[in-house]
Amino acid sequence: MMNRILITGAAGQLGSVLREKLKGHAKVLRLSDMADLGPAGEGEEIVPCDISDGDAVMDLVEGCDGIVHLGGISVEKSFDLIESANLRGVHNLYEAARAHGRPRIVFASSNHTIGYHDQTTRLDHTSPYRPDGYYGVSKIFGEAVASLYWDKFGQESALVRIGSCTPKPLNWRMLATWLSEDDFVSLIDTVFRAPRLGCTMIWGASNNDAGWWDNSHADFLGWKPKDNSADYLDEIARTVPRPGPEEPVAKYQGGVFTDEPIHKS
Amino acid sequence: MMNRILITGAAGQLGSVLREKLKGHAKVLRLSDMADLGPAGEGEEIVPCDISDGDAVMDLVEGCDGIVHLGGISVEKSFDLIESANLRGVHNLYEAARAHGRPRIVFASSNHTIGYHDQTTRLDHTSPYRPDGYYGVSKIFGEAVASLYWDKFGQESALVRIGSCTPKPLNWRMLATWLSEDDFVSLIDTVFRAPRLGCTMIWGASNNDAGWWDNSHADFLGWKPKDNSADYLDEIARTVPRPGPEEPVAKYQGGVFTDEPIHKS
Amino acid sequence: MMNRILITGAAGQLGSVLREKLKGHAKVLRLSDMADLGPAGEGEEIVPCDISDGDAVMDLVEGCDGIVHLGGISVEKSFDLIESANLRGVHNLYEAARAHGRPRIVFASSNHTIGYHDQTTRLDHTSPYRPDGYYGVSKIFGEAVASLYWDKFGQESALVRIGSCTPKPLNWRMLATWLSEDDFVSLIDTVFRAPRLGCTMIWGASNNDAGWWDNSHADFLGWKPKDNSADYLDEIARTVPRPGPEEPVAKYQGGVFTDEPIHKS
Amino acid sequence: MMNRILITGAAGQLGSVLREKLKGHAKVLRLSDMADLGPAGEGEEIVPCDISDGDAVMDLVEGCDGIVHLGGISVEKSFDLIESANLRGVHNLYEAARAHGRPRIVFASSNHTIGYHDQTTRLDHTSPYRPDGYYGVSKIFGEAVASLYWDKFGQESALVRIGSCTPKPLNWRMLATWLSEDDFVSLIDTVFRAPRLGCTMIWGASNNDAGWWDNSHADFLGWKPKDNSADYLDEIARTVPRPGPEEPVAKYQGGVFTDEPIHKS
Amino acid sequence: MMNRILITGAAGQLGSVLREKLKGHAKVLRLSDMADLGPAGEGEEIVPCDISDGDAVMDLVEGCDGIVHLGGISVEKSFDLIESANLRGVHNLYEAARAHGRPRIVFASSNHTIGYHDQTTRLDHTSPYRPDGYYGVSKIFGEAVASLYWDKFGQESALVRIGSCTPKPLNWRMLATWLSEDDFVSLIDTVFRAPRLGCTMIWGASNNDAGWWDNSHADFLGWKPKDNSADYLDEIARTVPRPGPEEPVAKYQGGVFTDEPIHKS
Amino acid sequence: MMNRILITGAAGQLGSVLREKLKGHAKVLRLSDMADLGPAGEGEEIVPCDISDGDAVMDLVEGCDGIVHLGGISVEKSFDLIESANLRGVHNLYEAARAHGRPRIVFASSNHTIGYHDQTTRLDHTSPYRPDGYYGVSKIFGEAVASLYWDKFGQESALVRIGSCTPKPLNWRMLATWLSEDDFVSLIDTVFRAPRLGCTMIWGASNNDAGWWDNSHADFLGWKPKDNSADYLDEIARTVPRPGPEEPVAKYQGGVFTDEPIHKS
Repeated sequence: MMNRILITGAAGQLGSVLREKLKGHAKVLRLSDMADLGPAGEGEEIVPCDISDGDAVMDLVEGCDGIVHLGGISVEKSFDLIESANLRGVHNLYEAARAHGRPRIVFASSNHTIGYHDQTTRLDHTSPYRPDGYYGVSKIFGEAVASLYWDKFGQESALVRIGSCTPKPLNWRMLATWLSEDDFVSLIDTVFRAPRLGCTMIWGASNNDAGWWDNSHADFLGWKPKDNSADYLDEIARTVPRPGPEEPVAKYQGGVFTDEPIHKS
Repeated sequence: MMNRILITGAAGQLGSVLREKLKGHAKVLRLSDMADLGPAGEGEEIVPCDISDGDAVMDLVEGCDGIVHLGGISVEKSFDLIESANLRGVHNLYEAARAHGRPRIVFASSNHTIGYHDQTTRLDHTSPYRPDGYYGVSKIFGEAVASLYWDKFGQESALVRIGSCTPKPLNWRMLATWLSEDDFVSLIDTVFRAPRLGCTMIWGASNNDAGWWDNSHADFLGWKPKDNSADYLDEIARTVPRPGPEEPVAKYQGGVFTDEPIHKS
Repeated sequence: MMNRILITGAAGQLGSVLREKLKGHAKVLRLSDMADLGPAGEGEEIVPCDISDGDAVMDLVEGCDGIVHLGGISVEKSFDLIESANLRGVHNLYEAARAHGRPRIVFASSNHTIGYHDQTTRLDHTSPYRPDGYYGVSKIFGEAVASLYWDKFGQESALVRIGSCTPKPLNWRMLATWLSEDDFVSLIDTVFRAPRLGCTMIWGASNNDAGWWDNSHADFLGWKPKDNSADYLDEIARTVPRPGPEEPVAKYQGGVFTDEPIHKS
Repeated sequence: MMNRILITGAAGQLGSVLREKLKGHAKVLRLSDMADLGPAGEGEEIVPCDISDGDAVMDLVEGCDGIVHLGGISVEKSFDLIESANLRGVHNLYEAARAHGRPRIVFASSNHTIGYHDQTTRLDHTSPYRPDGYYGVSKIFGEAVASLYWDKFGQESALVRIGSCTPKPLNWRMLATWLSEDDFVSLIDTVFRAPRLGCTMIWGASNNDAGWWDNSHADFLGWKPKDNSADYLDEIARTVPRPGPEEPVAKYQGGVFTDEPIHKS
Repeated sequence: MMNRILITGAAGQLGSVLREKLKGHAKVLRLSDMADLGPAGEGEEIVPCDISDGDAVMDLVEGCDGIVHLGGISVEKSFDLIESANLRGVHNLYEAARAHGRPRIVFASSNHTIGYHDQTTRLDHTSPYRPDGYYGVSKIFGEAVASLYWDKFGQESALVRIGSCTPKPLNWRMLATWLSEDDFVSLIDTVFRAPRLGCTMIWGASNNDAGWWDNSHADFLGWKPKDNSADYLDEIARTVPRPGPEEPVAKYQGGVFTDEPIHKS
Repeated sequence: MMNRILITGAAGQLGSVLREKLKGHAKVLRLSDMADLGPAGEGEEIVPCDISDGDAVMDLVEGCDGIVHLGGISVEKSFDLIESANLRGVHNLYEAARAHGRPRIVFASSNHTIGYHDQTTRLDHTSPYRPDGYYGVSKIFGEAVASLYWDKFGQESALVRIGSCTPKPLNWRMLATWLSEDDFVSLIDTVFRAPRLGCTMIWGASNNDAGWWDNSHADFLGWKPKDNSADYLDEIARTVPRPGPEEPVAKYQGGVFTDEPIHKS
């Protein structure tokens, strides 16, 4: 069993899920965010932290033997906001990990690194980046930093390009992108348990009938997602209007992010 | 629910199956063939049509929001017969679809487009054509027409390279090529339901243990065939003499079609 | 030295060039067309022929030990015209070759088999077809027939996807597509001389600095084109307005053919 | 049903398993080894044989319609020992098979042919050899001999790169390499039953959640392993210390074989 | 002829070269840097600018129909320095280009985006990033921004991964990485002249006998470098000690950059 | 300059050529063979040696900083002869090199490792082996040993799959396979001069117009063969009957070796 897992961005939607579901996966969960996390529960430590503050991150990481990095901005925003949280923030995190014994990092990357690929195109780990906004660009930056620290220092990372991690799929596009919360948890367990991780990109999607992403390069880890968006197909077909084939939500893997402008703030 | 699905070649073996199994998948099934189709059942329209007659096909397609094109010749025949039904016929169909709002087309292509590949060779959607007769050549022609109308006009098509669509597999080769009738129906449903189809080739085979064809490029559609020829392996082993490794039925993916001569009529 | 080379379509632009340039490459050049070819010169035979007439083609091919098949339609036309000349015509030619000892065939295929590929995309012999009109579709049909006769009968063919065979390149697109007349002649010589040809697709372009097509799969033949469109770059830059990046002539490999409608006659 | 299956190396660990489990898969099991095999059971023939003795092997193979070749050395040893058993022995076996009607051969190859590949790398049938010792080199030799006899004489072989064939997986590495005994038996059955085998490499691993090897090129055979090392994951996690990511057993597919010296005897 | 080319980083080593060699390639060269550029020569405009100042960059780009972006840091430095010049700076540049009619951008990327690849490995445009420092990471960021602006806005860019642009190659590694100044100039000309550019990565190396990078995907541009590092091989062999095969300068494509620490300032 | 290059098999046809042409490429050429080498010339050492004698080879290698291993059998022979010279011999050589500081080895491999590939197929360094005899199998064994010693001990090797090294090409097949003597010498120089070699396969053919083999993976070495078999095409066309397309010499890359039987002595 692990000693202490750090969850950054723990006050967010996904962070809240993991706060509950990773309970008991380590002796201590260290939870961090800029937003209020409420009181620490049993087996929890609360460490408020601005991820763009290098010294604070250095302290935050100390004593952890695993990190789930959800911190930062997770939608399209201005360059300034993304720079602070997602560029500088990732730099700070990897420097802190390097200083503190290189605990494994699960880095929450995103499908928006490849959002301009057509939904009729199957991708694997060698497919080119096609970001659909500065958010996606920042995740490419993060993957590049992870690669650098692996080659230079042996820091291991899982780069999880999360599709849509929600309790259930909510629209036609999510039939392909859905990552169930339980499957995300089992992925984190798998990553922390494996004897060898390296610096491995993993498509973060469940065992959906429909899908765009080939994870076979990462079969060495033995992660087998169990949930399937197809269980919700009839519900979606009844309740969500089917988009036309040329609408962004049906055409591009990044969906409506491809329609986002460049944000100014 | 769809309004009206057109089935061409509806009097044939496969057409008869779909006439039954697609009942209720649209408000109306429009059934067409040169051969007699009997009286129209409930929810059926009978429209006799010679597919090589452009004007007739133009009328035939009007008012349909989906087409399953089984019409034409489905075995090796003379060039003249194939020209009329499978070359001119496909031209007529795509022109009619273009004129009438571009309903999606399920085009019954064939494994005989690639029949000279060795059975020990795994194919995917990028494998080269190797037709085993003029029938196979005509299906390549049809796939090319579909590609043209997609690039030029946005016409969507599913190019289904059907293996062997029969109630059950009947010989050793069909252990790989079998497409169960139910799986074909679920494929048609999937194609008509998907938000985006594009112009996509799909290998028409069930979830057989043995197989030559990789459909992963089309996983975006979410089609999951359920049937498995392996359920019939023991029966075939008991009742069908096992061919030698150099017999056409065991050597080539197109089987005995590779032994066909050029037909003169 | 060869005994008799048949040139079909010998009255056309390219046919006229080869009539001159292949003089002396065989004891006899048999020249055929529906159009008037004038009187036979020394070492020439004139055999008028409608390629859509199977019996006539059967006679035409007899006694030849090499065929350069330029006959048929070489621009976008109606299906009826293309059917007669390019579908039926190719069928007739291959049947005649099969009946008369399988002389090698140089089949004039076209870049319009792949015309919808972007000009920024490099293609090789495994790239998918993307025809830009019925003309392109008919050349795909011809390549499929050639493949069939190779696998079934051992008929050897060179499938030459000609770019633009003109005395010199005339516009920006031809900087990539230009095939000089001399290079075409040397290709024909190479094809007829090689001990083994098989059924080989060859991109018909000169040794241009700019190009989209990779011929390395056919290096076994030893064809080395000598001419280079770059010698005409300055002249084109001075005299031809540079198209914008989204104009068909600059965007698609098939150029303005992608703008052609479906012809009705 | 087969008439007589020969098992070489039948006194070894794997041979003993197959002696039991292949009982009844042929009318007669011919069991051979240099070591004592005890008395012949029902449906068994005992034929002691030194595989390096060509004349003896010639006799051994006579009358068999299937061969499972486990004979030879299966760990790292000196060149002299490997030469005699695994180089000369394979030569003798294929010469004998050629002389006696070319019964199909299941050749026990090994993961040590590719042992220096990283465990984070997914391999398929086209991946380069990277042997981790002379044992691995000798199996490459054997695969090359099998290829030669297929191309020259039509001898069919299954080249099974066995991972770890044990009653259950015993350590972290075997989560990927485990081949259950039952799955090995079903593979042998599949190989002997298939109408066409050719000369096909098959990764010898069960249906493990974790794995490095892609067998899809061999799907034409229809082999579906049933067992899964993941059933033993908890037991291994409790009882076997997890290796660090840079230890040979976690880093290389060949595991500790990569740490072996060159043996002198 | 172009109207106005902007060169950022014009006071640097490479900028000074282009200031001279691009003279006359446009009516006006607009030269910009934070460092002193001296007085403007004929056909020159001097516009001092801090690339991290968005408003200033907005003004800088106005009126230009081509940009050669050399500005920013070109060696390994601290994150803070690289952030300001190479992350924020690139953002500013692309926003300014978007606001001012999307002049083509030649973006000086670097071999340090892939510096950890082994020198025995051949790369093409699909090879994965393996940055060797934050400098390399920042160039990956820049390539991602360029991709974003192409997909979202149609902004065209050439992403030139410059090897070593010096008057002549100076060591063994530069035999592979050398880009002569004249070849860089001809590349810029080619990029600005081409009818269609898209967003194309180009390896920035001369026509060296030794090399690691395959530019064939960009052959559509028609760039043919003329110089060859092999002309300097004897000189280097005489004057530069040959490194051992495991030294970073001989082992990694990024050379000694792989030995750089993380800089703190 | 190198100190001492060992040439094994120095009395053979190729050895005699190198004895002359490598004169002066090292201070001393150590020449070894079982056959008589005559008296030592200036800068030569004669060391008779049976390559199958491990102790003798151990002595032979001592003091050399480069090895050109031509020793062994270079045509199809019995297993016994090949075993002694080409299997045991290679083992002895690599053990000796390991004991004596790992001088680089140029290993004379052969096109007969891939001899059953069709001449219309282009190969690269990832193409599968298809040996055409025990000679070819033995060269695969040698390549595997070289790979093992690279991964385990860092021993560097060039695996040169020699086509046909003769003063000039002598038949149609050699138009593709010819390696001029000068080009072989320049390859050896390149291999010994390069800072990093690794364990690299190199196709041993000149800069022939016709060819089957892609050496681009080895471009990092900078070897540029100068000679071209096409200079002899007319001579061959005049003097050597052109083989039919199905004759082994025209069909298979290994030529008439594919027609060889298994030798018994």
